[in-house]
Amino acid sequence: MDRLSLNQRTTERWTVAEAVDGCVRAGLQWIGLWREPVQACGVAEAARLVAEAGLRVSSLCRGGFLTASAAGARAAALDDNRRAIDEAGTLGADCLVLVVGGLPAGSRDLTGARARVADGVAALVPYAEAAGVRLALEPMHPLYCADRGVLSTLDQALEMAAPFAPSSVGVVVDTFHVWWDPVVEAAIARAAGRIASFQVCDWITPFPADALLSRGMMGDGHIDFRHLRRLVEAAGYDGPIEVEIFNADVWAADPDEVVALMRKRYEEHVLD
Amino acid sequence: MDRLSLNQRTTERWTVAEAVDGCVRAGLQWIGLWREPVQACGVAEAARLVAEAGLRVSSLCRGGFLTASAAGARAAALDDNRRAIDEAGTLGADCLVLVVGGLPAGSRDLTGARARVADGVAALVPYAEAAGVRLALEPMHPLYCADRGVLSTLDQALEMAAPFAPSSVGVVVDTFHVWWDPVVEAAIARAAGRIASFQVCDWITPFPADALLSRGMMGDGHIDFRHLRRLVEAAGYDGPIEVEIFNADVWAADPDEVVALMRKRYEEHVLD
Repeated sequence: MDRLSLNQRTTERWTVAEAVDGCVRAGLQWIGLWREPVQACGVAEAARLVAEAGLRVSSLCRGGFLTASAAGARAAALDDNRRAIDEAGTLGADCLVLVVGGLPAGSRDLTGARARVADGVAALVPYAEAAGVRLALEPMHPLYCADRGVLSTLDQALEMAAPFAPSSVGVVVDTFHVWWDPVVEAAIARAAGRIASFQVCDWITPFPADALLSRGMMGDGHIDFRHLRRLVEAAGYDGPIEVEIFNADVWAADPDEVVALMRKRYEEHVLD
Repeated sequence: MDRLSLNQRTTERWTVAEAVDGCVRAGLQWIGLWREPVQACGVAEAARLVAEAGLRVSSLCRGGFLTASAAGARAAALDDNRRAIDEAGTLGADCLVLVVGGLPAGSRDLTGARARVADGVAALVPYAEAAGVRLALEPMHPLYCADRGVLSTLDQALEMAAPFAPSSVGVVVDTFHVWWDPVVEAAIARAAGRIASFQVCDWITPFPADALLSRGMMGDGHIDFRHLRRLVEAAGYDGPIEVEIFNADVWAADPDEVVALMRKRYEEHVLD
């Protein structure tokens, strides 16, 4: 239970201060933060709240969106990522999650978009290293390839991370994004030393009407969490296990009850 | 244009007789059929209509659904597949498409489900060979892994097909299902000799509310069709190019207009 982390989007209506309090009430030691609520709180104030509560920040979501081809949009994206790196540094986050972005409007050049992501990561690494922040490439479910993340498999993320030190560029293993992958076992083994974040939530059916809110509480869907947890542990990962759920029903529920249910399901479905 | 095939689900309201007439009116030479409307027409009658119209059957959809673990359900699935093979033989279809099935209700054992698919295919091959029918394993978009098809990548389909002669077990390359794959170029090259069917339709955004009706007309979405067509041709495939679109708006339109638009978009987006 000392590894369980609440990603604050799971309790979407909570501010940073409320989420910190909620974690303390639930006896958690970790929290995953998002930039927008952190900025609403103030980055320094968020860092103070987290530290005074005795929590640690498992991840900051999110940088990335590096697929733009126009020079101005590209420069703006890199600037925004540098700000995200600064914020992650201030918060002492274990990593800054990068959601790499989808195809630019009107483009069908997937290879080109992927190449621009690789270039963008390379451009950010020196800044991240100077700030002591680890970047975490998040392969996303192929469902989101067109409009959110052209990084579609763990193998692809590892290949993109390979030119850099594992302490500088890691990968996110999110069960929702990788569970279907026929070669996930080998990919997680290859990820040894690169796993910067392990996130859990379930794949539910029937598929919800809003594709962005299709994540379920552990146990409500089809994913074998123990199997994937054992694989990341066999690859040497012993860090926080973060629960990140985008789901209209979860968001409508009382956040304290969501956290209680998350604890229960984590024990039942993720731990041995 | 002599390679273009209308998969009859694209004009969902048409019976076999109407779809055959529609293909003739549009100057097409190929049609892809589905078992339910073929059975409604009568298999022998459907074969007669197609032959008298001078059409050829690019594929019969579909067999498969081989993931059940209960002995009775498994035997029933194999029986149904043998009937589908008989029907494909009567129709002279280029192949019988296999949609392999999702996880059984309540199961989270993806590895086990995939193993049962491999066993089921092995059990069907002698029957298919005797009937002169080529089985075509269809890797499906990972979106459908839980509830429709645990075969998620072209590489995985090729591995499953490998024990059998390419003339007995091929694979389907459906742009909708494979376009996102970071290793699709290498996988299609490896598929040389195994490509039993090439299907085209687009990936559209925002993702429609019904995940099963999320396919779009070529040109309405994000897929680079020419790139994928050139890859399958470089791998030696010169057979029909089938348009299979499940989409509420397409189904609501006049079928003749859908076929006309399909021809136009095929010229604009698939051909050179």
